[in-house]
Amino acid sequence: MNLTDTIIALATPPGVGAIGVIRLSGGEAIALADRFFHGKPLTEQPSHTIHFGTIRDETGRIVDEVLVSLFIAPRSYTGENVVEISCHGSNYILEEVIRLFIRAGARQAQPGEFTLRAFLNGRMDLSQAEAVADLIASASSGAHKLAMAQLRGGVSDEIKRLRQELIDFASLIELELDFSEEDVEFADRTQLRHLIDRILLLIKALLDSFQLGNAIRQGVSTVIAGRPNAGKSTLLNALLNEERAIVSDIAGTTRDTIEEVLNIQGVQFRIIDTAGIREAHDTIEAMGVERTLEKVRQSALLVYVFDVVRTSPEQVQHDLAQLVHPDLKVLVVANKMDLNPYTKYEHYFGGEGSGEQGAGRQKFEGSKVQSSKVQEDSPLEPSNLEPSNLEPYALRLTPLNIQPAQWVPISAINRMNIEYLKEKLFESVIEEEVSMDTAILSNTRHYEALQKAGESLQSAKQSLQSGGITTDLIAMDIRRALHYLGEITGEISTDDLLGNIFSRFCIGK
Amino acid sequence: MNLTDTIIALATPPGVGAIGVIRLSGGEAIALADRFFHGKPLTEQPSHTIHFGTIRDETGRIVDEVLVSLFIAPRSYTGENVVEISCHGSNYILEEVIRLFIRAGARQAQPGEFTLRAFLNGRMDLSQAEAVADLIASASSGAHKLAMAQLRGGVSDEIKRLRQELIDFASLIELELDFSEEDVEFADRTQLRHLIDRILLLIKALLDSFQLGNAIRQGVSTVIAGRPNAGKSTLLNALLNEERAIVSDIAGTTRDTIEEVLNIQGVQFRIIDTAGIREAHDTIEAMGVERTLEKVRQSALLVYVFDVVRTSPEQVQHDLAQLVHPDLKVLVVANKMDLNPYTKYEHYFGGEGSGEQGAGRQKFEGSKVQSSKVQEDSPLEPSNLEPSNLEPYALRLTPLNIQPAQWVPISAINRMNIEYLKEKLFESVIEEEVSMDTAILSNTRHYEALQKAGESLQSAKQSLQSGGITTDLIAMDIRRALHYLGEITGEISTDDLLGNIFSRFCIGK
Repeated sequence: MNLTDTIIALATPPGVGAIGVIRLSGGEAIALADRFFHGKPLTEQPSHTIHFGTIRDETGRIVDEVLVSLFIAPRSYTGENVVEISCHGSNYILEEVIRLFIRAGARQAQPGEFTLRAFLNGRMDLSQAEAVADLIASASSGAHKLAMAQLRGGVSDEIKRLRQELIDFASLIELELDFSEEDVEFADRTQLRHLIDRILLLIKALLDSFQLGNAIRQGVSTVIAGRPNAGKSTLLNALLNEERAIVSDIAGTTRDTIEEVLNIQGVQFRIIDTAGIREAHDTIEAMGVERTLEKVRQSALLVYVFDVVRTSPEQVQHDLAQLVHPDLKVLVVANKMDLNPYTKYEHYFGGEGSGEQGAGRQKFEGSKVQSSKVQEDSPLEPSNLEPSNLEPYALRLTPLNIQPAQWVPISAINRMNIEYLKEKLFESVIEEEVSMDTAILSNTRHYEALQKAGESLQSAKQSLQSGGITTDLIAMDIRRALHYLGEITGEISTDDLLGNIFSRFCIGK
Repeated sequence: MNLTDTIIALATPPGVGAIGVIRLSGGEAIALADRFFHGKPLTEQPSHTIHFGTIRDETGRIVDEVLVSLFIAPRSYTGENVVEISCHGSNYILEEVIRLFIRAGARQAQPGEFTLRAFLNGRMDLSQAEAVADLIASASSGAHKLAMAQLRGGVSDEIKRLRQELIDFASLIELELDFSEEDVEFADRTQLRHLIDRILLLIKALLDSFQLGNAIRQGVSTVIAGRPNAGKSTLLNALLNEERAIVSDIAGTTRDTIEEVLNIQGVQFRIIDTAGIREAHDTIEAMGVERTLEKVRQSALLVYVFDVVRTSPEQVQHDLAQLVHPDLKVLVVANKMDLNPYTKYEHYFGGEGSGEQGAGRQKFEGSKVQSSKVQEDSPLEPSNLEPSNLEPYALRLTPLNIQPAQWVPISAINRMNIEYLKEKLFESVIEEEVSMDTAILSNTRHYEALQKAGESLQSAKQSLQSGGITTDLIAMDIRRALHYLGEITGEISTDDLLGNIFSRFCIGK
């Protein structure tokens, strides 16, 4: 990539609008614009000023009446001379203007090339540059907040601080290497181990925040699963109806996804439609468990819904035993709690291990008749929503390592406990130890670099502890850790790395 | 419509891009922007300057890092204070910023409201305002040139000049009315008639240019029709392949039409696909002539193609007699001229009325055998393309009022005369008497207003000629003509008229 020439691109989305903005950047940008702009000599104007005039092509034909904004290096987005030409929002005109400048020697910009130049000219570090792309893609307040924090240096500052501590550390080790023949120890080994421990702790905290950060940035892939008539549709509607619509009147904002999106406190829960599963068969066992399992495997969060009237504790246990896996967050939602037979007949069933499954099911079937009466008596008793009413289920799920905190009793049709369920959904992603106010990692590249830095430091720590290892190896581990940390902010960068990052940008940024 | 408050809208197309621009206009626009912009006090900055800073919401949360452009009244598009906020191109951010300002008292702009304000504040006349919408919609160099000419006052100046002549005229007549009891004639009736004639001539020239202007602005709806195997597809491909592709790499510029678009010297020919007609039947007579006729009725231009080898003059005459109607431009394309039997056997057929149709056809059938030999001999003789070779057809079409100039001999498969056909297509729209350099009418509203002005003047002229009519009636006709002319530039306007015009704009303009 040639980084000295003048690049041009449409900076606004294509399509018809009131205006479209074309951006030029490079040493010759202003001189080039001046060749086709008629109004006043642009090269004599100060930075950050706007000028009205016409763009005329080589034959003198007026292509458009425009406003030209000037940004003189280094006071610009890229750090180079930048010209923004605000045209009438016609694709025809925008194309004509871009072609005109390309004929005159400008080059169509690659995706992300403006931001790449901003990075190369020291206008932002690599993490901030990546935040620009995140910011443009942000579709929720959470993702927006993360990207904005990163753009303003939140993550960079944290990483730079870690790296500085490590550089201080490394300088002592390197000093020892210089004097290696004298076998001195400038770096107090105990202090150094403490320092490494502290840095590892910070790295761990950042790594721990990644699951949250990634969830916020990408949204949380969520599956709602359950037997037919468990009330999944009713639940989904109850969740979605309460959501303040975030989609505006502006045309074109509708996201082309088949998922339902639920927005809770700025985190997007992308709820995968399990309609196919719902209608296909009669029981989870029979209904292509493989397809359900596939969707669950691809998801971060499972919301398992069951009907407390029609589903026995054994059935719930059976379903969940198939669905849960170690990395999956699980919420068990007991629906139709207004009809819960256990509320009034809590001793009707035995507790844990009350008999083999067939017998349990038989008793359970009998309770349906009873539950109809309960509905007539007091269907909306708040006491129905007590998790303790779910004890027969809870006992069954203890072996699956599902905790009482993961139980949510609701009545979807009466919208009881829906807000509580939302809190639980949010909490299932936002763990206590991570606050939204500290630096949050949301970029996979950063996560991987930090992981590698952590591994190198772990290796250095072990070398220090085992004692017999030469200082060379410790120094090498630390240099490696410094390298990976530097990759995050771009203090260390390669063409491949940059190409990989900026090719994901849109053209014009 | 309240025209004193501050309006806001997205000025760039919705969708993801590097930047999105939000436009505020109104007396309070700068003060309002200043409330949420952090960087420097906007109210103290000069016009036409750009400022970097952040937009923060009521809680202090940073919504975006932005560039704000200031335009202080009256040096702005609308003539009011205008602020343009250049944000990161995320719909989420753009919506948040717009909502923030709406909460603070700004109002979402109606379609065209910025331009309406520009008109009401005297920044442009009505014809120029309409040109803004045309400019944004322009998709060809011709449409662009028309809109640009109109935006820069081409049509307005012509109309204003006409109107001024009429006002001078009217003042004399009105003077007579003031002195009506004295029965004087301030206006020399002969001179006045000459003046009216001259104005009527100018109006006629403008009205005559409308067909061209409308064709350029809207494109020319064109039907290619002909019998099966006449070579319509080959012709269409020959025409389209030679066209320099005007569609750019920019996504979203593809127009969603099922028509083929041919661009000749800036005029778009929208060629209606007649495939259904092509393949359905064997002869035009049998193949649902009604459907062909329907398409032809909706079109401005018919390109009738026939195969000179297989189609007799009588058949061509028969087809065209059904297709042509008074308002339709017609080109008769004689295809496969490289095989033309008439080239070498021009006396094989008799001339006009050489016998009844059956006999003519019989002779024609016989010539096919001969023509095969011609192909082997000299298929690409340029002399084959002489229109004089089509005399037997031409004679048949004289009664249909189809002139030799409308005849185009080609060989589609050899691409012979394709450029000449394009010239003919262009000429069929661009008549000699209308030059692209004079004012061209392209707006139906202007056309209708000019027509009514012309009618009123005709009426005044007749009154003058008949002599017995009172000056009152002449004055009334002239006032009416002045009214219609004034409607074009907006010197006369009503709320209905304005609402009708500006509601067709996009939001943000």
